[in-house]
This record gives sequence, structure tokens and C-alpha cells, in this order.
Amino acid sequence: MNNLKTNPANIEVGVVGIGLMGSSIIVSLLASGHQVKAIAPIQSDFDGAAERIADHLKICSRAKLLRDSVSACLDRLYISMDYGCLSDCRLVLECVIEDVDIKSKVYRQITDAVSASTVIASNTSAIAITLLQKLVSNPERFIGIHWAEPAYATRFMEITCGDITDPKYASWVFKLAHKWAKEPTLLRKDIRGFIANRLMYAVYREIFHLIENGKTTMVDADKAFRYDVGSWITLMGLFRRIDYTGLADHAEIFKNLFPHLSNAENVPDIMQKIVADNCRGIQNLNGLYHYSTEEAKEWEEAFAAFNEDIFRLAALHPAPVSEKESELA
Amino acid sequence: MNNLKTNPANIEVGVVGIGLMGSSIIVSLLASGHQVKAIAPIQSDFDGAAERIADHLKICSRAKLLRDSVSACLDRLYISMDYGCLSDCRLVLECVIEDVDIKSKVYRQITDAVSASTVIASNTSAIAITLLQKLVSNPERFIGIHWAEPAYATRFMEITCGDITDPKYASWVFKLAHKWAKEPTLLRKDIRGFIANRLMYAVYREIFHLIENGKTTMVDADKAFRYDVGSWITLMGLFRRIDYTGLADHAEIFKNLFPHLSNAENVPDIMQKIVADNCRGIQNLNGLYHYSTEEAKEWEEAFAAFNEDIFRLAALHPAPVSEKESELA
Repeated sequence: MNNLKTNPANIEVGVVGIGLMGSSIIVSLLASGHQVKAIAPIQSDFDGAAERIADHLKICSRAKLLRDSVSACLDRLYISMDYGCLSDCRLVLECVIEDVDIKSKVYRQITDAVSASTVIASNTSAIAITLLQKLVSNPERFIGIHWAEPAYATRFMEITCGDITDPKYASWVFKLAHKWAKEPTLLRKDIRGFIANRLMYAVYREIFHLIENGKTTMVDADKAFRYDVGSWITLMGLFRRIDYTGLADHAEIFKNLFPHLSNAENVPDIMQKIVADNCRGIQNLNGLYHYSTEEAKEWEEAFAAFNEDIFRLAALHPAPVSEKESELA
Repeated sequence: MNNLKTNPANIEVGVVGIGLMGSSIIVSLLASGHQVKAIAPIQSDFDGAAERIADHLKICSRAKLLRDSVSACLDRLYISMDYGCLSDCRLVLECVIEDVDIKSKVYRQITDAVSASTVIASNTSAIAITLLQKLVSNPERFIGIHWAEPAYATRFMEITCGDITDPKYASWVFKLAHKWAKEPTLLRKDIRGFIANRLMYAVYREIFHLIENGKTTMVDADKAFRYDVGSWITLMGLFRRIDYTGLADHAEIFKNLFPHLSNAENVPDIMQKIVADNCRGIQNLNGLYHYSTEEAKEWEEAFAAFNEDIFRLAALHPAPVSEKESELA
């Protein structure tokens, strides 16, 4: 990498792993103007990858998220099982399964193909960046880039430094992410669960505790959270909500309520039981809720549609958060 | 009350307190078809109340949330400072300030005017229903009905029983709430902070802990939560999200992460300092964020607009949660 410019038209990006998430990330990159080299590490990723990506691009096009035509985007895509074609990439995104051994092998093949300053990023949400970093030569160019599904229609992105990530690469990825129409966050330290997930785990610890103690039900908690928090979170975020509804009131309630919140360390019984019963949620129609085949399909479709709608809605109400506020010093 | 029917056209409802929240609740009730008796307990509530309510009704009408005309709705409204006009109400909603002594006086005036079986409800979000219940004669007809602002364009509603609330009234209010286009939750036990607020306090405990430990910043946490959680919460709620993204993965992360979550009992230093400095958020332009006068106004307007949009969006993607699932047994 000779410079840290951020014009997607001049930056070739590699993506290793063309499953559901990888395909969706590729579409986001193509939509942003990048040349993309997509590597299928296994045959099942290769099969049907072109169709998957074309299908996503058509959805993007219908949703008016593409500046170019679908065919112009596809012209910028090259799919292969040969890591060698990554040689000119300035950034390579790994999106293979959450298995350290497999990721390690993938990193070796990437680093064999690219320059020593090519930034290598993992989409992991489960494994510490500092740990994965140790598996890569020139580890200062390794970083976490955590996308949300579908990658081309969500603004969320968590960029996470490992202990020895060079801040100049973090800063570059952070700027580049804005070209992908993201509202990225930059985690200077690699904390477990990153931010958004970790905060939701605090919610789950509390709600399972309340349910196990007979204080409420899953259905009721879902409704309350959906229709209360859902009605302001996308617009206001956490802290503007406090500014809006009352600082002193919040401080007073913190004082009264924090001592009553759950400090549980164990996996809730409900979850232990359901996992032991091999319930796999939407996938096998049995989870915390039950689903008919039709309902499972409806949920998949509703999620895709909702995501597109909330993406547009968030764009209608941009909060005055400037890129600068969050940049690396 | 001779029966527990739920046709709004046949149910006269009283609202005591015509501030911002009270006005907005009155509009929701008028839009649902009720006759409404609005009591201004203080002169400042009375002044301008008719205009405030008419303004909200016009907003409703423009947003196509009214079945009748604005004037037809206003014809069903009577505003007074005389509690005596509540005599025919089957339900009276108290929305005065969060002060037990003031509420107590208000309850005495309501109970002097209504029948012994008129349901009396508080919109409190800060005081226990079981405590307020003790201030009311025939306390079995007392209940919490917690609305979100703006009441006519939010689906959220928490209905909370006190220790001695008669379930038949809770069931009646729960059914009636569906006529108000709400997705109500019914808390059988009166827990501190109800559900939605309480879960958010678990989030605040964790995020202030991370910020105070230099792990992230307010701006980054806001972005992550807005764009991740905001992209699914309104549609999926808490538990379907687990079903959708993986039960076993969640259980594994619970095991690893719960022991690392904050168990803090104290008010975060950031909040203590800011309250001591008399920062009052949007109200005096100084809060966790700072605001210009124009920005504060923009936020108010954006919130009103967003709320209307997310209300519509939620209606486009109704989750298959039936009323029955959540009803009192």
C-alpha cells in the first residue's frame, strides 16, 4: 500500500468467504465502487456465488441503493478459488466461519498472496481481534471490521483494533467505511462482545432474570422493548435520550435501581434447557418461540424488508454526529 | 361500572392533568372514539389546553391517524377545572407530576366524583403502583397505565397491577388498550422501572462502566446501538433475535460474558458530575451532549417526525403476536 487514500474506485478489495455474509459484504463493496476479488475457500462457497451476489445486487438496485447498473457492478467482480488473485488488494476481508484453526489457515494463504502492508480484516463477532492478530504476519495491519446483515443495507459497523494494530490503518478503514455508507464506530481497545452486542447481553442478563423470577413473560418483554426502545433508539441513541427525557431523573433512578439489577453470571436455565434440547431457533423451527415453516419464511422476508425500510428512515433523520467526533486523535 | 365492555364509543374517559403528556393522551383517546372529560388541576394546565389538543389532533389528521374529522373529535371533548364532571367516567387517567402528595390530593378529588368501580389509573413511570394504590379508596380498581410520548403515535403501553389490583380490571384495560392501537404489556407484578425502562437501565449500567474505563466513547456507543439494535429491535424483539441469530451461540457468549458485565451499584461519576453542574439536557442546552438553540429545536422536531415514521413502519411489519398470548389467564 503506497498511500492511505480512500477513493473506492482506486482500491481493490478482497473478500475471503462467499457465504451469506460474504456475499452481502461483496455487494456493499461493489455498490461503493470497489473492484472486488472474491475468494471461495471451499467448493460450496464457489457454487452459486455469482448468482447469490447478482440476486443481492438486483435487490439493491430495486431499493435504489446502487449508483451504477447491476452489470457495471458485476463487471468489477472476479470470483475465484485461487488466493493468488488477491495480489493487488489493499484490503482483504475474511468472513469464514468462527473457527480459529480455519481462520489461521486462511490468513496464511492471504498473507502469502498480498503485500506486507495490505490491511487484513476479520468480520468475526466471537473471537478477540488481539488473538487473531497473532496468527498473521505483520500483525500491525490486522483489524476487526464487523458488519451487520444485510451488509449493503445497514449503517452499523464496528471497527476494532487489536493490541498491536497500527492506528493509521484503523483511521484509514474508519474513513473508508464512510464511503460504504456506514456509521462506523472505532473501538480503540478490543473488548469482549464489542459494544452493541455487549450492551444487549446486559439486557439479556436482566430480562432472563426477571422471567425466571416470574416477574414478566417473553411476549410482554418483547412488546415493551420493541415498541418503547424501538420508537426512539434509531434516532436518539443512548445519551441523547437521557438529555431529552431528564438527566436528574435518570441519575435518581440509577441510584435506586442499579442495586436491584441482576448480577447473574450463569447461563439462564431457559437457555441451558433449550440448547440441550437441540432447539436451533428459526433454523429448525424450535426456539424460544415456535415457528411453522411458513412463519419462519415470513420472518426472514420481514427482516429483509424491515431492514431496508429502517435504513431509509435512518437516512431521513440524520443525527448531527459528524465523522470528526469519533475519529482517532 | 355495570359491565366490562370495550367499545370506546360507549366509554367515557377522564384525564386529570393536561400538560404535554396529558394532552397527547387525550388526543389518543379522542382518536379512538371516546368521550373525554379533561380536568385541569391547575390554571396553567387549563390555559391553552384546547389549542394544544387541537394542534395535536391536526397533526394526527395530517398523518392519517384519525378516522373522524378534527372537529368531530373536539366535539367529544369537555375541558374543565371541576372534578365533578368526571361522574360518568368508567376510567380516569391521572397524568400529573411525579409527586406522591400531589397525586394523593388528586386521587381524593377523583374518588369523590366517580363511582366506586370506576377504574383509576396513573401514568407514573417513577412511583410504585402498589404505593399509589394505597392512596385510593376501593384500591382494587387502581392500576398503572404507562404511555409513551406522543401517546397518539406510539404502540408502547405498560399496564401494571398493584399488589391488590383486581385482575378483571387489568384484563379490561388490556383489551381496551388494543382499541387505542397499542401493543400493551401487562405486568402482573409491580416491578421497579417496569420492563422497558428497567432493561435500558441495565444497558446504562454497562455502558457508563465501559466509558469510565476508557473502553469506548459516548459517540461510538451511540452509533453502535442506534445502527445495530435499531435495525432489528422494532421488528424482532429480544427473543426472536436469539432464535434468528443462533441459540447455542448466545448461550456460549452468555457463559463467557456475563461474569465480565458491570455489577455497579453507584451512579456513574459522569452522571453525578453533570447533575451537580445543573445540566438539564435539551432543556438548558447542556447535557451529556451540548446543543445550540437550533439543534435543540431540530431534535424535538426530528423526534416527532421519526416517531410517526416508525409507527407506520411497525404497522407495515406486524409481528405475529396475538392478543391472546399475553392476556391474563
